[in-house]
Amino acid sequence: MSEKALVYLKNNREQLLNKLSNFLEIPSVSTDRAHKEDIHHAADFIVTYLHDIGFDFAEKQATSGHPLVYGEYNRAGSNAPTVLFYGHYDVQPADPLELWDSHPFRPEVRDGRLYARGASDDKGQVFMHLAVFEAYLKAEGKLPLNVKVCIEGEEEIGSENLYEVLHSKKEQFAADFAVISDSGMVAKNQPTILYGLKGFTGIEINVTGPDHDLHSGMYGGAIRNPLMALSHILASMKNEEEVITVEGFYDGVEPLAEEEKKLIDQVPGESYSEATGVNETASEKGYTAKEHTMGRPTFEVNGMYGGYQGEGTKTIIPSTATAKITCRLVPGQDPVKIQQLLEEHVMNVAPAGVTVDVKKEKLSAKAYKVEPNHPLITKAATAYTKAFNKETVFVRMGGSIPVVEWIEAIYQMPIVLLGFGTPDDRLHSPNESFPIDSFDKGMETLIYYWNEVGNQ
Amino acid sequence: MSEKALVYLKNNREQLLNKLSNFLEIPSVSTDRAHKEDIHHAADFIVTYLHDIGFDFAEKQATSGHPLVYGEYNRAGSNAPTVLFYGHYDVQPADPLELWDSHPFRPEVRDGRLYARGASDDKGQVFMHLAVFEAYLKAEGKLPLNVKVCIEGEEEIGSENLYEVLHSKKEQFAADFAVISDSGMVAKNQPTILYGLKGFTGIEINVTGPDHDLHSGMYGGAIRNPLMALSHILASMKNEEEVITVEGFYDGVEPLAEEEKKLIDQVPGESYSEATGVNETASEKGYTAKEHTMGRPTFEVNGMYGGYQGEGTKTIIPSTATAKITCRLVPGQDPVKIQQLLEEHVMNVAPAGVTVDVKKEKLSAKAYKVEPNHPLITKAATAYTKAFNKETVFVRMGGSIPVVEWIEAIYQMPIVLLGFGTPDDRLHSPNESFPIDSFDKGMETLIYYWNEVGNQ
Repeated sequence: MSEKALVYLKNNREQLLNKLSNFLEIPSVSTDRAHKEDIHHAADFIVTYLHDIGFDFAEKQATSGHPLVYGEYNRAGSNAPTVLFYGHYDVQPADPLELWDSHPFRPEVRDGRLYARGASDDKGQVFMHLAVFEAYLKAEGKLPLNVKVCIEGEEEIGSENLYEVLHSKKEQFAADFAVISDSGMVAKNQPTILYGLKGFTGIEINVTGPDHDLHSGMYGGAIRNPLMALSHILASMKNEEEVITVEGFYDGVEPLAEEEKKLIDQVPGESYSEATGVNETASEKGYTAKEHTMGRPTFEVNGMYGGYQGEGTKTIIPSTATAKITCRLVPGQDPVKIQQLLEEHVMNVAPAGVTVDVKKEKLSAKAYKVEPNHPLITKAATAYTKAFNKETVFVRMGGSIPVVEWIEAIYQMPIVLLGFGTPDDRLHSPNESFPIDSFDKGMETLIYYWNEVGNQ
Repeated sequence: MSEKALVYLKNNREQLLNKLSNFLEIPSVSTDRAHKEDIHHAADFIVTYLHDIGFDFAEKQATSGHPLVYGEYNRAGSNAPTVLFYGHYDVQPADPLELWDSHPFRPEVRDGRLYARGASDDKGQVFMHLAVFEAYLKAEGKLPLNVKVCIEGEEEIGSENLYEVLHSKKEQFAADFAVISDSGMVAKNQPTILYGLKGFTGIEINVTGPDHDLHSGMYGGAIRNPLMALSHILASMKNEEEVITVEGFYDGVEPLAEEEKKLIDQVPGESYSEATGVNETASEKGYTAKEHTMGRPTFEVNGMYGGYQGEGTKTIIPSTATAKITCRLVPGQDPVKIQQLLEEHVMNVAPAGVTVDVKKEKLSAKAYKVEPNHPLITKAATAYTKAFNKETVFVRMGGSIPVVEWIEAIYQMPIVLLGFGTPDDRLHSPNESFPIDSFDKGMETLIYYWNEVGNQ
């Protein structure tokens, strides 16, 4: 079977792309309270979709935060496997708006790419699954396996309530294995299976000096400058060789094995300069950019601000300075421990004359690694290769997906990460996009995969 | 004479305060193009004022930037001295608005202080002079000396066009001496004459990394972080002992003489902790806070920004990072040379993987020092003491007034700095204010001073 489903996708391509556009038009930004209603619209869109294509059950489940969509298809029979499909319908903020060539929430196709916030991360990839379910059910009348759908609305704000849901509704969400499509390929049309993900943690540093902005002529020389103090603090946390200088940060991290370095070097790499515009990469001393990105922990200042940002000059000593920092972790590192080390370091180097406060981000995840030769993984590789007509590569990546850690911790079920994004998708950035042909080939891959792992 | 003028001020106090409020209500922010019209309204206000009180001449003079107000009173006779009075009607931006207890451009009196942007710097002090001219002309029918008024609208953006005006209109602006009221007293009701001002220069550092914000999971470990790079650059320019570590920065600076240290220590100092809320001062190694502020050069980061500043987290490597820096200079330092040293230092320490650009601020001024026992200065001290009933102190201050350097360079005339601001005025900050009784005593001082230096 599955032939009819493939034909259905081809014949309904236009209608499906339009439906995807309707989905992307909903500005479901989870970090911004102003978009609370849009979040609900996006969830309702999915519930309606599942009902329309004949799922046995679909509902919007309330959480203490944004709702989660749960759905079930049970008609593949008791001897067919059950998959738990996870995705998220929330997106990152679109700002700065002025850097978008087209409106982030008015999807537009240019040069074979669909431009919109969420086109790749993750609404576009979620929609591919929904469309494949539709194809099977409309064209074949059934799916080759039982499906449980779990699509949350809080991934971009750390999946704040998902753990609680997965934990308390263990019976409802139980399955034989899980599939997640919230990742990318190492290069366009290069089938890629993630066998490792990084962990994640973060802090915010707030430095407070004078209780109001001061005239730099009247007080310069008497008062510690919060922005300068914060610069000294940050400079003491990572040196210019990209080595993190926070005591204990690397404790428990195994050095990257030679064979793993080889594996990483074999991965067809994108050109960093093409994808990012930088003339030179910068990575941890002793590691290549690819090795550091895939296999070593990182420390990034995501945002920093204080004082005057307007036109011209304003001769002040600012009252406050803030830095937002996140780290990507590898196996052997505990996110909570790392947060403590970061806080201790900041407090130890904080200079006199300012008050330094460290806020620990709730968002946190352990790193994850899976066995690359598990049958559910190898079957995925086969499906990929069939659809893209290219050998599948196995990689570790720097991204973090907390749900992966939680599903493993709570259900101990195998997790298959089927990503279809490309390095040029500009996730989290202005002009996020997704290639139309990856959309086609990705759905083809899913058709083959369900066919392989489901009831023949 | 001058008695009638004093009485006039008392009798018309209410009306004058209301008129001052009307002046302060005009948001004449010079750095923001959006306020171009308000700038003209403020200039027109002064021209009309001078006409109404009987100045012989008053006009708004166009410049390549904001207009300048020029006025003349010539009826004191040819054997009376002529003073050039300088002030500015433009103000600093009012942001952040949310930190004001009352609207910055809706003046409000609370606890004996008048709250408004410009109440002290400099519209309030300019208005005191206008009111005193009014008092003399309405009550006595004449002024004891000839007056040339020069009130610009670009002081807060570096007096960009004033030098050109002063230079090209040398005949028109020529006078026997100059009086400037754009400074403060070291403590409320403590008569203070500035005999030294600091010089000024500034740069903006722009660090550019990737051509768009990057996903920290996909690129962390491969790409230099502009905010971290900028933090390293800044940390290399001033150490934690508040010593500026830019090579050559202190060249030509004479160490603060012991007697000058004594003089500074004798100045009744405000409590830094009361005025700023900091628990501990931070000053250059080997100097007290007061010594550093009055007599040593400074380096301040006035503003810094890059990456995500919104609610929650955004896991990006930002594309750019910016820092605005200004320095206060002392005799022996050349602003242009200092700018070059700053730029050279930044370029020398700029790391690979980012592009660093240094923008030199146009705003620049040499430090200034005057002889404290010049008769025009001692007469000012007498007038102060008479009005405030307290001995006058002589101080150097950290502020910079480019016009002082230019008037000296172009006209070689004595310059008397009569400041009436107080340390709690919050210049350039939210909740700027000016004490009502300083307004009264300041005008009294001016009445006595014009009487002393004018024709008896």
